[in-house]
Amino acid sequence: MADYKIAPSILSADFARLGEEVENVLAAGADIVHFDVMDNHYVPNLTIGPMVCKALRKHGIEAPIDVHLMVKPVDRMIGDFIDAGATFITFHPEASEHIDRSLQMIRDGGCKAGLVFNPATPLHYLDHVMDRLDMILLMSVNPGFGGQKFIPSTLDKLRQVRERIDASGLDIRLEVDGGVGVGNIAEIARAGADTFVAGSAIFNTDDYRATIDAMRSELAKA
Amino acid sequence: MADYKIAPSILSADFARLGEEVENVLAAGADIVHFDVMDNHYVPNLTIGPMVCKALRKHGIEAPIDVHLMVKPVDRMIGDFIDAGATFITFHPEASEHIDRSLQMIRDGGCKAGLVFNPATPLHYLDHVMDRLDMILLMSVNPGFGGQKFIPSTLDKLRQVRERIDASGLDIRLEVDGGVGVGNIAEIARAGADTFVAGSAIFNTDDYRATIDAMRSELAKA
Amino acid sequence: MADYKIAPSILSADFARLGEEVENVLAAGADIVHFDVMDNHYVPNLTIGPMVCKALRKHGIEAPIDVHLMVKPVDRMIGDFIDAGATFITFHPEASEHIDRSLQMIRDGGCKAGLVFNPATPLHYLDHVMDRLDMILLMSVNPGFGGQKFIPSTLDKLRQVRERIDASGLDIRLEVDGGVGVGNIAEIARAGADTFVAGSAIFNTDDYRATIDAMRSELAKA
Amino acid sequence: MADYKIAPSILSADFARLGEEVENVLAAGADIVHFDVMDNHYVPNLTIGPMVCKALRKHGIEAPIDVHLMVKPVDRMIGDFIDAGATFITFHPEASEHIDRSLQMIRDGGCKAGLVFNPATPLHYLDHVMDRLDMILLMSVNPGFGGQKFIPSTLDKLRQVRERIDASGLDIRLEVDGGVGVGNIAEIARAGADTFVAGSAIFNTDDYRATIDAMRSELAKA
Amino acid sequence: MADYKIAPSILSADFARLGEEVENVLAAGADIVHFDVMDNHYVPNLTIGPMVCKALRKHGIEAPIDVHLMVKPVDRMIGDFIDAGATFITFHPEASEHIDRSLQMIRDGGCKAGLVFNPATPLHYLDHVMDRLDMILLMSVNPGFGGQKFIPSTLDKLRQVRERIDASGLDIRLEVDGGVGVGNIAEIARAGADTFVAGSAIFNTDDYRATIDAMRSELAKA
Amino acid sequence: MADYKIAPSILSADFARLGEEVENVLAAGADIVHFDVMDNHYVPNLTIGPMVCKALRKHGIEAPIDVHLMVKPVDRMIGDFIDAGATFITFHPEASEHIDRSLQMIRDGGCKAGLVFNPATPLHYLDHVMDRLDMILLMSVNPGFGGQKFIPSTLDKLRQVRERIDASGLDIRLEVDGGVGVGNIAEIARAGADTFVAGSAIFNTDDYRATIDAMRSELAKA
Repeated sequence: MADYKIAPSILSADFARLGEEVENVLAAGADIVHFDVMDNHYVPNLTIGPMVCKALRKHGIEAPIDVHLMVKPVDRMIGDFIDAGATFITFHPEASEHIDRSLQMIRDGGCKAGLVFNPATPLHYLDHVMDRLDMILLMSVNPGFGGQKFIPSTLDKLRQVRERIDASGLDIRLEVDGGVGVGNIAEIARAGADTFVAGSAIFNTDDYRATIDAMRSELAKA
Repeated sequence: MADYKIAPSILSADFARLGEEVENVLAAGADIVHFDVMDNHYVPNLTIGPMVCKALRKHGIEAPIDVHLMVKPVDRMIGDFIDAGATFITFHPEASEHIDRSLQMIRDGGCKAGLVFNPATPLHYLDHVMDRLDMILLMSVNPGFGGQKFIPSTLDKLRQVRERIDASGLDIRLEVDGGVGVGNIAEIARAGADTFVAGSAIFNTDDYRATIDAMRSELAKA
Repeated sequence: MADYKIAPSILSADFARLGEEVENVLAAGADIVHFDVMDNHYVPNLTIGPMVCKALRKHGIEAPIDVHLMVKPVDRMIGDFIDAGATFITFHPEASEHIDRSLQMIRDGGCKAGLVFNPATPLHYLDHVMDRLDMILLMSVNPGFGGQKFIPSTLDKLRQVRERIDASGLDIRLEVDGGVGVGNIAEIARAGADTFVAGSAIFNTDDYRATIDAMRSELAKA
Repeated sequence: MADYKIAPSILSADFARLGEEVENVLAAGADIVHFDVMDNHYVPNLTIGPMVCKALRKHGIEAPIDVHLMVKPVDRMIGDFIDAGATFITFHPEASEHIDRSLQMIRDGGCKAGLVFNPATPLHYLDHVMDRLDMILLMSVNPGFGGQKFIPSTLDKLRQVRERIDASGLDIRLEVDGGVGVGNIAEIARAGADTFVAGSAIFNTDDYRATIDAMRSELAKA
Repeated sequence: MADYKIAPSILSADFARLGEEVENVLAAGADIVHFDVMDNHYVPNLTIGPMVCKALRKHGIEAPIDVHLMVKPVDRMIGDFIDAGATFITFHPEASEHIDRSLQMIRDGGCKAGLVFNPATPLHYLDHVMDRLDMILLMSVNPGFGGQKFIPSTLDKLRQVRERIDASGLDIRLEVDGGVGVGNIAEIARAGADTFVAGSAIFNTDDYRATIDAMRSELAKA
Repeated sequence: MADYKIAPSILSADFARLGEEVENVLAAGADIVHFDVMDNHYVPNLTIGPMVCKALRKHGIEAPIDVHLMVKPVDRMIGDFIDAGATFITFHPEASEHIDRSLQMIRDGGCKAGLVFNPATPLHYLDHVMDRLDMILLMSVNPGFGGQKFIPSTLDKLRQVRERIDASGLDIRLEVDGGVGVGNIAEIARAGADTFVAGSAIFNTDDYRATIDAMRSELAKA
């Protein structure tokens, strides 16, 4: 079985007691803290920045923090999140004029680097940077807009990326974000994903552990 | 004595347990929750957005929340913070093409409206909108940059705004933000301010109540 | 009695037969064709550009065409409207980095030049350019947004501009746009305006002449 | 024979009597009204917006209206043209950060959705959105600039898109715009196009019907 | 007699042998090297950047270098010109969101700070920053456009700024740039200027010294 | 042996005596003057503009001048560099909304046209414009940032472009820029490049001729 990771998105957690929420979801079996940063320019919403990441580290959170930048431009935020204790930093290729440089900055700062693809974004941005990547994140909804369902054509796109990763022989995680739940996680895993972001699917349930366990059972079948 | 209000800026609070922090500072005698929103475009930092405001309301915070938008453009954030339970919404006149319209939006949404002036911003933006305002906020440091001290020329500027408010006969709060502490709050009050934002001066002390009490004693002398 | 001019805004006309509409409203006594250009950037709407202006000239319209640019930046549109047969070209000072230069361009192109003030825009943009101006337009609503009423504080602002014009001794028209109708045109004229934009107040009536005549009767009393 | 459609661009019509012009060209055999929207930002010109589209519908035009957005960003215009009675809405992929979302908006609004490709724009933007599309428009000149001739390499590009459409099995129109006339329409059809925009080629002739009939004769040979 | 300074603008020098040109003009009696930086965004031209300034210092030029930033935004260029050996750094208030902060940056970097006013820019940007300034530069033409003459209303504006400087009691130079020559320098000095930028008036003559001497004679009469 | 060209980048020359530096490097055997234009927007630096190019021509430089535009947008600079005597003008596809049009402008102005690819930029921008190109420039470092080494994956990318050029049968130069020196020029040539930009590798040596000769010896082995 692949090394599957579950990454709850804290956008769905209670921000009034975020440290506790993150502790609870990790205690319930989550692997990675997914951290969605929106700037009201690249997407029509503004969420949380580096100070909140730093607060989680000060609070004692030691799990990987996976920062998804939905901001444009990206370079200043990359620097700030390196300082704030991020583990992964991913950004959208359309949001940086100098993608190779931004990827280098992330690794030079001691973090793991990734690119994020909107549902319609072509995969050719991968052509010359595979050796700079630790993660590829496919959006299965349009980021920054609420109430969306998993876009089915993401499955084909996952298969294409999985092929590229396998062909490269490199150690790159393949993450998916948007509309992922117990009902479809196995199918998504079969298409090639190994890291699963889930927000309301976890935080809107009463028992985080039960939900995460159900996801793992599904993954075991994949 | 004027109706002085103390407004701790939650940027200096612990974001991992923000609900508790806000409860504590209100219990210690603070009047208003000051909420600083930065978008990495109008200022070189990104902080917190409407979701965090909404979480405070859900957590049971009933005190006024005073949202200072350091964002550009402002209109979408105004709508989102109206929905998130803001009490005051203030913005910088340079950040809106249609200032009168943005001020109207805030009041039409049931909130109180204000304009914020950077240290160098001239006061003439007040000329035709005094009757649209519930608050005027003078920045006594440059917003979005760390480690700055109270800019002394703010005192003169406060006196000029106080004169404009008194001449108008309108009920408009005069707030000041940046480098305010026990040591200078009385002098600032004498220059005309009635609402005082303080971040690290409060949250970086061990005993919030002692600090707020010390501020009030100083204000009593003003 | 002042030399009052009535300037119907063709935004309220029927665009499917615009030539005829403009002929009719001029035949009904209108003086000036008011032409509102929006670019979906400076204001949240996109209306009509230079081609439509040129078509009116080709159609035989000889009355002054008064082009109000709600666009940013302005310089390319200035050139295009000079070529398209505009008489007046006015723009917002916030929309040009080089206001003096843009005003010069308009006059160098053989047109009359003006500045437009949003409801909250301070008048200090007039300080160093009075001798470059043929028209000053005060917006009495926020441009680009529908369904608004005349903002009463415009009357004071009109009086201030009238004073500046009279003190200059220059021949500058003072125009007002937004919520002007038979019911308030006299009061607006008394505050100093001499040119009156009216859109739906004219085009949404069955008898353009009756409405324009009613406006003139009111102006005769002013 | 393929289901060929002729779509006169009203940019070349007489804007002073647009309703009549559109009626005439439809009576002369045109199938679709092509409506070019420019915002002076994405292209160096500003043309006509939603109000003009709405006026055509009010005037009684029932033919499909095919709105080509040469604007950036696109989302607000999409909403406005849905309300204004558009049939097709097409936009450039470079002009939207969230292409999948913009395409969804168009269909959710009851319209048909399309992407437009500038002469140099690669086709990879099609890779993940074929099932969202009702139309693909290839520009055979650079939009927004006057006096250009049909770019010959468009023929190859048409053949590549035709292959993608046929391989998909989906019902997607393939439209071409720029320098299309009686002299080359057959060759263009043979390369795979089925919908032909023509502006001056139709409106600058005395007899719209004769021109459209000549185009149809050519198409019959294709 | 005031402490008049003549500041040749090197935009009119020969860039192929700039070191020599600057040496010559200083040897001919010039006081200050005026250095015009344009970025093709704030003005429609691109000139020279920090590397050229640094090269002049390396070449042995020890005279004050007066850098006029016609760029937007300004903060990165401020840092780069501090490092490159600038003496004065001036910028346009419309080009910085945080004017007070930009002025502080310049002084913190060991340089002298100034604001530049376009012909139409109101003087109110001076209201709250006089104590941050070492220089005020009034443009007497529109920057970035060629072939312009001295705008006469600059004389009045100079008198107003001179009054503000004198009232402040501060040591602030009053510079003027655009269309200054032997024929009008005395009149400009009488209006209050003490620092005179001249480009082609000096570099397009055969004998730099003769021209500068003629300017000084005129100034002696002022 | 291929027709190899060596193109020293004058960014590394002494700007105080640029004419002489360029004469020297050409006398030492260089073929082409490489001219790097940065605007502080597309890249974080501002260098030199059209005036400097024109000065080189006036100084008598007759060698080809190869202008690499690291600016956004590009069209105004294209016009200015045509007037300034450029031979080649290359730009980044991400920096123009209308790539085909910009390429046409360059050729219509009598210059040779090229596209530049950042390290991560995919090659698909070449798909529909090969017949518009005289040069393809691959960046082997990120432009605008200092102190970088040759990125090894450029070699593969060079091979892919070489294949495209050979398949096209067109006369297109393949240039490489960034970290090129005596030590790796042969390997780079073997990957397909025929034009080599070198800045500090040439100008930071005492003997330009010795360095250029060493490069040519290496190329002879390739």
